[in-house]
Amino acid sequence: MKLRTIYAHLDNELKRIEESLEKTVHSEQPTLQQASTQLLNAGGKRIRPVLVLLAGRFGQYDKDVTKKVAVSLELIHMASLVHDDVIDDAELRRGEKTVKTKWDNRVAMYTGDYIFAKALDIMADIPSISAHSRLSLTILEVCKGEIEQIKEKFDWEQSLRTYLRRIRRKTALLIAASCQLGAISTNAPKPYSEALYRFGYNMGMAYQITDDILDFTASEKQLGKPAGSDLMQGNITLPVLYAIQNNECKEKLQQLIGLGNEQAVADAVNIVLESGGIAYAEEMSRTYLQKALFALEGLPVSKQRKTLEDIAKVIGKRKF
Amino acid sequence: MKLRTIYAHLDNELKRIEESLEKTVHSEQPTLQQASTQLLNAGGKRIRPVLVLLAGRFGQYDKDVTKKVAVSLELIHMASLVHDDVIDDAELRRGEKTVKTKWDNRVAMYTGDYIFAKALDIMADIPSISAHSRLSLTILEVCKGEIEQIKEKFDWEQSLRTYLRRIRRKTALLIAASCQLGAISTNAPKPYSEALYRFGYNMGMAYQITDDILDFTASEKQLGKPAGSDLMQGNITLPVLYAIQNNECKEKLQQLIGLGNEQAVADAVNIVLESGGIAYAEEMSRTYLQKALFALEGLPVSKQRKTLEDIAKVIGKRKF
Repeated sequence: MKLRTIYAHLDNELKRIEESLEKTVHSEQPTLQQASTQLLNAGGKRIRPVLVLLAGRFGQYDKDVTKKVAVSLELIHMASLVHDDVIDDAELRRGEKTVKTKWDNRVAMYTGDYIFAKALDIMADIPSISAHSRLSLTILEVCKGEIEQIKEKFDWEQSLRTYLRRIRRKTALLIAASCQLGAISTNAPKPYSEALYRFGYNMGMAYQITDDILDFTASEKQLGKPAGSDLMQGNITLPVLYAIQNNECKEKLQQLIGLGNEQAVADAVNIVLESGGIAYAEEMSRTYLQKALFALEGLPVSKQRKTLEDIAKVIGKRKF
Repeated sequence: MKLRTIYAHLDNELKRIEESLEKTVHSEQPTLQQASTQLLNAGGKRIRPVLVLLAGRFGQYDKDVTKKVAVSLELIHMASLVHDDVIDDAELRRGEKTVKTKWDNRVAMYTGDYIFAKALDIMADIPSISAHSRLSLTILEVCKGEIEQIKEKFDWEQSLRTYLRRIRRKTALLIAASCQLGAISTNAPKPYSEALYRFGYNMGMAYQITDDILDFTASEKQLGKPAGSDLMQGNITLPVLYAIQNNECKEKLQQLIGLGNEQAVADAVNIVLESGGIAYAEEMSRTYLQKALFALEGLPVSKQRKTLEDIAKVIGKRKF
């Protein structure tokens, strides 16, 4: 089953969110307008808005409030991506030139600042102190993750714990916050918002691990950037961490990354594929998904719970 | 009278704010730690914290709450400075190398992001929705100002209105917010927080106009950067706007900026000085200061009101 099919019943709401995103990033400054539109059209799965919409249904659902939370979280995600691309010096994202490539780092910086400020402004309408407080903490962690990512690049001695902390901050916490804030903003009972947080957190971990696997197993066309890109940028992901337990593999990979040409990338990808690192990472992703599904048991049986369950299952199996 | 003397009675509180700022920007990541410390030590007058401390006294003063608001606003100011330096491509600030000069634009970007996230995190503790909402709006406007500044650089046809809108966003609104949030966070009566907002807004406008004057009238030693720097970066400030009403002046200035060498800068500064633009800007600054002082009349006679009055008077006369 496709992700879009699972939440087809949210299509109308998602369409309104899309409209609201477009309206929000609208600017009279031409570069900003073009850069924001570029980011918006690069799209992605809008998984954070979907989770907000579903989580909101465990409380006194309010379309307007939920839409605002959903738009705000997607904007924060977008802002973090555009700043991330500066830090990663990334040329492409989802097959499109990044803002920093098409313009420059300065434009990427202020586009991110602007989108982020818009997100805060929309969130300010939500009359829940605990929502604001949760969001601020999440943003702080995401920022720390952005910085750690630089520090930990090309660090061949990093531990599994370092990797997990990094993807927690990079991905899992904002997905967890989407679930939790969706629930908090409609005054869902606390046990529900906590279960949703655990669901989001564990699904987010599985999601990022899967992303890190796909960097080796998917095609350039599927990824929108060459396979092995993460590795060549020095991001030591889970499959790599597994592979470099073997010292010979580690030395070879270091050499190949040093070379950096097309053949070297292909060879590096092969080393990781042959190491068993993919199976290891898949197993860990599965474990997180099981935890996510387990968290759902704390929620009342309902259509929205079933949808979350289906999403988690698809996330675990996605091929790109 | 010196600024520091006027609020000498706040010294203990300011010391604690300084400690809290240091503790807050502490990071285990060495570059981030050094960059933040650099920013912190570049110092400045801590005018925003002072205003928060004074405004807070018009409500049920709470040292802890007020300290948090003060620290948060100073951090937001710091974050905006470090991103501003990227946009302005500024080499020096207050005589010190900027973060983007000492490291690079990437470090400046994530240092700003990090400090900003810390500010939000501290602010999240303040249990007032209207405070959060005011702050978000202010941040959005500050961001818009950051972007306008680029667009309006070297725009010789801009109007007085454009200039005023830009300094409003660049400076006045955050100073106004410092006064207002200081009052809101201690539950001061609404007419007081509104009067304080007007005071801060008008004083902020006067403050920035004075800054723009000093770029021409102060020495390199006083400024911590060469005189005429703003103009050479293409920032069309109030004295320049006045000077270029004369077409001959305008053409000469455009030529000189094109040249960009030391003699050209000195000549450009002289043209502005001889145009009468300084007197014109001083007059406008005085008008804003009078409005600021008038706003104070809406507040009960008190030591804090007297201190605000003295601050405004000194701001209007400062020579660097």
